[in-house]
Amino acid sequence: MERQYSVILGNLGNTRDRFCTGYKENPTTTQMLAQAVAVPHVKGIELVGTWDVTTDNASEIHKVLDGHGVKCVSIIPDLFADRIFSKGSYSSKDAAVRQRAIDDTRAMCDVARSMDCDLLNIWPGQDGYDYLLTADYESERAWFCEAIQTLANENPKIRFALEYKPREPRTHSYLARMADTLLMAQETGCDNVGVTIDTGHAFNAGENVGEAIVLAKRAGNRLMHMHFNDNHSVWDDDMIVGSVHTVCYIEMLYWLDRCGYDGYFSMDQYPYREDAASCIGESIEWLVMFDKIVQENRQAIGELIALGDPVETSRFMRRLLLK
Amino acid sequence: MERQYSVILGNLGNTRDRFCTGYKENPTTTQMLAQAVAVPHVKGIELVGTWDVTTDNASEIHKVLDGHGVKCVSIIPDLFADRIFSKGSYSSKDAAVRQRAIDDTRAMCDVARSMDCDLLNIWPGQDGYDYLLTADYESERAWFCEAIQTLANENPKIRFALEYKPREPRTHSYLARMADTLLMAQETGCDNVGVTIDTGHAFNAGENVGEAIVLAKRAGNRLMHMHFNDNHSVWDDDMIVGSVHTVCYIEMLYWLDRCGYDGYFSMDQYPYREDAASCIGESIEWLVMFDKIVQENRQAIGELIALGDPVETSRFMRRLLLK
Amino acid sequence: MERQYSVILGNLGNTRDRFCTGYKENPTTTQMLAQAVAVPHVKGIELVGTWDVTTDNASEIHKVLDGHGVKCVSIIPDLFADRIFSKGSYSSKDAAVRQRAIDDTRAMCDVARSMDCDLLNIWPGQDGYDYLLTADYESERAWFCEAIQTLANENPKIRFALEYKPREPRTHSYLARMADTLLMAQETGCDNVGVTIDTGHAFNAGENVGEAIVLAKRAGNRLMHMHFNDNHSVWDDDMIVGSVHTVCYIEMLYWLDRCGYDGYFSMDQYPYREDAASCIGESIEWLVMFDKIVQENRQAIGELIALGDPVETSRFMRRLLLK
Amino acid sequence: MERQYSVILGNLGNTRDRFCTGYKENPTTTQMLAQAVAVPHVKGIELVGTWDVTTDNASEIHKVLDGHGVKCVSIIPDLFADRIFSKGSYSSKDAAVRQRAIDDTRAMCDVARSMDCDLLNIWPGQDGYDYLLTADYESERAWFCEAIQTLANENPKIRFALEYKPREPRTHSYLARMADTLLMAQETGCDNVGVTIDTGHAFNAGENVGEAIVLAKRAGNRLMHMHFNDNHSVWDDDMIVGSVHTVCYIEMLYWLDRCGYDGYFSMDQYPYREDAASCIGESIEWLVMFDKIVQENRQAIGELIALGDPVETSRFMRRLLLK
Repeated sequence: MERQYSVILGNLGNTRDRFCTGYKENPTTTQMLAQAVAVPHVKGIELVGTWDVTTDNASEIHKVLDGHGVKCVSIIPDLFADRIFSKGSYSSKDAAVRQRAIDDTRAMCDVARSMDCDLLNIWPGQDGYDYLLTADYESERAWFCEAIQTLANENPKIRFALEYKPREPRTHSYLARMADTLLMAQETGCDNVGVTIDTGHAFNAGENVGEAIVLAKRAGNRLMHMHFNDNHSVWDDDMIVGSVHTVCYIEMLYWLDRCGYDGYFSMDQYPYREDAASCIGESIEWLVMFDKIVQENRQAIGELIALGDPVETSRFMRRLLLK
Repeated sequence: MERQYSVILGNLGNTRDRFCTGYKENPTTTQMLAQAVAVPHVKGIELVGTWDVTTDNASEIHKVLDGHGVKCVSIIPDLFADRIFSKGSYSSKDAAVRQRAIDDTRAMCDVARSMDCDLLNIWPGQDGYDYLLTADYESERAWFCEAIQTLANENPKIRFALEYKPREPRTHSYLARMADTLLMAQETGCDNVGVTIDTGHAFNAGENVGEAIVLAKRAGNRLMHMHFNDNHSVWDDDMIVGSVHTVCYIEMLYWLDRCGYDGYFSMDQYPYREDAASCIGESIEWLVMFDKIVQENRQAIGELIALGDPVETSRFMRRLLLK
Repeated sequence: MERQYSVILGNLGNTRDRFCTGYKENPTTTQMLAQAVAVPHVKGIELVGTWDVTTDNASEIHKVLDGHGVKCVSIIPDLFADRIFSKGSYSSKDAAVRQRAIDDTRAMCDVARSMDCDLLNIWPGQDGYDYLLTADYESERAWFCEAIQTLANENPKIRFALEYKPREPRTHSYLARMADTLLMAQETGCDNVGVTIDTGHAFNAGENVGEAIVLAKRAGNRLMHMHFNDNHSVWDDDMIVGSVHTVCYIEMLYWLDRCGYDGYFSMDQYPYREDAASCIGESIEWLVMFDKIVQENRQAIGELIALGDPVETSRFMRRLLLK
Repeated sequence: MERQYSVILGNLGNTRDRFCTGYKENPTTTQMLAQAVAVPHVKGIELVGTWDVTTDNASEIHKVLDGHGVKCVSIIPDLFADRIFSKGSYSSKDAAVRQRAIDDTRAMCDVARSMDCDLLNIWPGQDGYDYLLTADYESERAWFCEAIQTLANENPKIRFALEYKPREPRTHSYLARMADTLLMAQETGCDNVGVTIDTGHAFNAGENVGEAIVLAKRAGNRLMHMHFNDNHSVWDDDMIVGSVHTVCYIEMLYWLDRCGYDGYFSMDQYPYREDAASCIGESIEWLVMFDKIVQENRQAIGELIALGDPVETSRFMRRLLLK
């Protein structure tokens, strides 16, 4: 299976955190795009709604992407940066805010269609809670589900990939892990609702990504999109793929294939202090090489998995990785 | 709602870990039972299959429980202590082992019926994996699901409560958290398959128990049983309720009521170095007092949850807890 | 012992994170100060160098504080917000940056003296590393130590309180926990180098704060300052004291007294979505009430600690907290 | 530098946990020894006092080891398996138990001398606490320190390597991490008191082992011994080296060399469900290969560390590990 690599455009931009307002200068969208398409293997771009693309400039951006020979892989509605969503978007206690979240997403469905893109990557970062005894888990989850259901029914040709993450910016996210996101997707009753795995979010959630992929397969083949990065497991550090973890990437690529995943491999990083394009390039190169290992050893890996002997697995991996 | 308290009989027994083979002397089942029923508020007992109860002694044990005026609340088939299940029970790669797990559970269904008990608490501690690239998540989860489906269909009047736990004794359990356990329960298609929350397992899984209760409600009202204990969050320490956590117990009792839970509050601890009956007694007393708080402040708590202001919640909890 | 409460001025200000550039409007320093001194019990203020106070405006700010009847409790040199320190301050690989960090701190020593403040709270947030195989732990720690030694020798009447934190903004901080910070303090050979405990940093580092206080006492009585807040343990959430943890605050106040701590109790929070002054006020009220418990039960707590029976401790805490 | 590999004899024996009393049959000491020495590269053995070696059988065991051509690398006094130490050994609240711990250790010093072994590996697993408000951190740490001081002064030619671990079997260990163990070692004032790093304990403590090695170097060159294994970071899983982590082993071998470590590389695993000798053999083979990488790239690694560019480090590691 030929891999298709892409990148979230904002990765090339300014980075900041709660302490430092800017680790870098702000590049323009045009500059970021030029850098992104220059990264080897990149064939697609993900755009954040209202930052990178709006109803007004969609056709212009579409042309620019075409000019670069890259596809718009997904649109990510901005449900996290605007202060209006600071206490939630689809699950806000405020009905007007919920409506605004739905309206903004609708607009991005139109934008997606106009750019021949069929995937909305939904990261509802502000939907969750910080303090105990301040959230109505029952009503707020129900509102969230209804919003997605409404949008998915209205836009049957758009796929809605829900991106889970256990925490940040809230201390608890409503879509925290693969399994609860699948429950939500199933509850909508819509086949065009599925899941995005961000590998770093999964590591931070204590998941084994290979197993999460299988959960999505068994729950109606709902894995729609992949975001790649690495971290030290205790936070969403958004680092270069392969800089911390090794073996589990090999396992996850094996299961992606076995479960028939044919979507993009998209890079999602936060290179606060590093050259962004180089970091993205490195991640892709690691994936290219992990992938080569999987392609060349698919049968052997399948046999190890069927055998279940840690000593044999160790011997195999050792010979594969070293020397 | 009147609470019903119970205890797992083995809590009163010998404790050991991988370093020390016995922190205490072995009491007999009779001695443990006498201690258990002497703990204030205890009205029910959970028994582990083959340790405490077998096909042969079920009617005798039933009489003893009757004599003490306590009910058999659940039977826990032993799927974790027998070496035969060391690499899994329902999900073992070995079909003969899977069959043995099903047969042993069947026997415990008969035992349960004979004791007027309608709940099997299924803790499949060995079902999972330790090493990457040694487990076939797809086949093994399918085997697990089929086994539960078979048992649940054969025993429609028995409720099967699946008890999740993220790890130990395996580094990764197949039933790790509430949401993946609900996916499994739903996949069986059986209404008599549900979930047991062990509060310590949930803490260790990074869950907020109040939210987990709501997930179970929304997925077909599948919360069937509660095991109570406390820990420092990073392991299943099986300590006295209230010794580490405070506020979250109040929140969870609120949600148990609001979601209509009417099952037992069962104590599940491991008092390695302490007097076991006293530890169980303490846990129940904490719950009795947390419960009083919830009963007396149900409406106020509901309003705080609807309001969503951490300052107001803080003010309320502060006045409640202190003085 | 009468407690003295203070607050970091910036807590009253704008909050932002890497996703949202501003959850609130920017108040002026004057506005923040007016709000801070209006919080009951507040008798002191901590100022961040260059944000709140500079060499130029120090005498003016001093007068304003005097006018409000509050003391400048500490100066926090800004070693984390200026992009120049993004790869470290005292431990930067770049000698010019290290010199700049020392010079900036020197200036803040002058500012402190001019404001009758004898404490510099050093939070070297950028000193650490993100990726494996990119940091020279040996040289970088040595540079850090030399810088502190130089500053402490030059300013013998200023106390330098090193504030540790395991991570953020770097994935690994050089001053990560109490014990490694004590090693550093001891290595300087200066009695005026000690430690600040931020309770949330300690929770996030997996420390029991009561025990950390004892470590500081045993290593030359080096606890110099306390920052209070709460979190869910897995990140530095900077929440209201008492909103997550309960028992451990009581234990830590007991040990602060027993170890002779007589410094300020300073609030350090990040009320992203809440009214800041109210959040700070709540934290202080929780501490006032925890403190009352400790004052009234000091002897009993000492006896429980000497006894070492979890059942007795549970019984005591239960009767204290509930009803 | 030529590596010297060794193994803790008990690794070859029975494994159990708190749920299953025996995953394997019990081999005899003779059988375990025969298996251990047959593992390629093994040149040394660590023995647990009273299990493997006693005052009575020391000379006999010594001969057996000689016969096999292997050295006794360390003696590990049993301070964790005997119920008498269940609430602590050197730090027990009971003075008689503390005396017993000292006496038992003294006996093992004699045994060590008689076997030409100069290292006692001290793992005080039961020294710590489980519940808040049940431990006197001040007195108990002082007792611990005095005991080690007494033993170290009495046995100036024996090196006492304190093995830290954050938890298990207690929820909190007194020797939890590298830095607090160094504080203790320094406090004894004895040069023959140092530290053992168990890589899995360090992972579980959230440490970067490379950095921990540097801390030991800077605090008086106190790293005395190394135990190797791997885990999933959240518990002491005692798995095959390299089965989870990769890059950090390379970093730690680099720093071991640079800091002049010339002790044994000892394997410490718990192969519950696997062939023990094969697991130990695998760990050694991974280390042999990681070591080869370090030896062949020492200068390049040093340059990357001095450079501090994650992109360059990524590029280097990628080319090294893959293909």
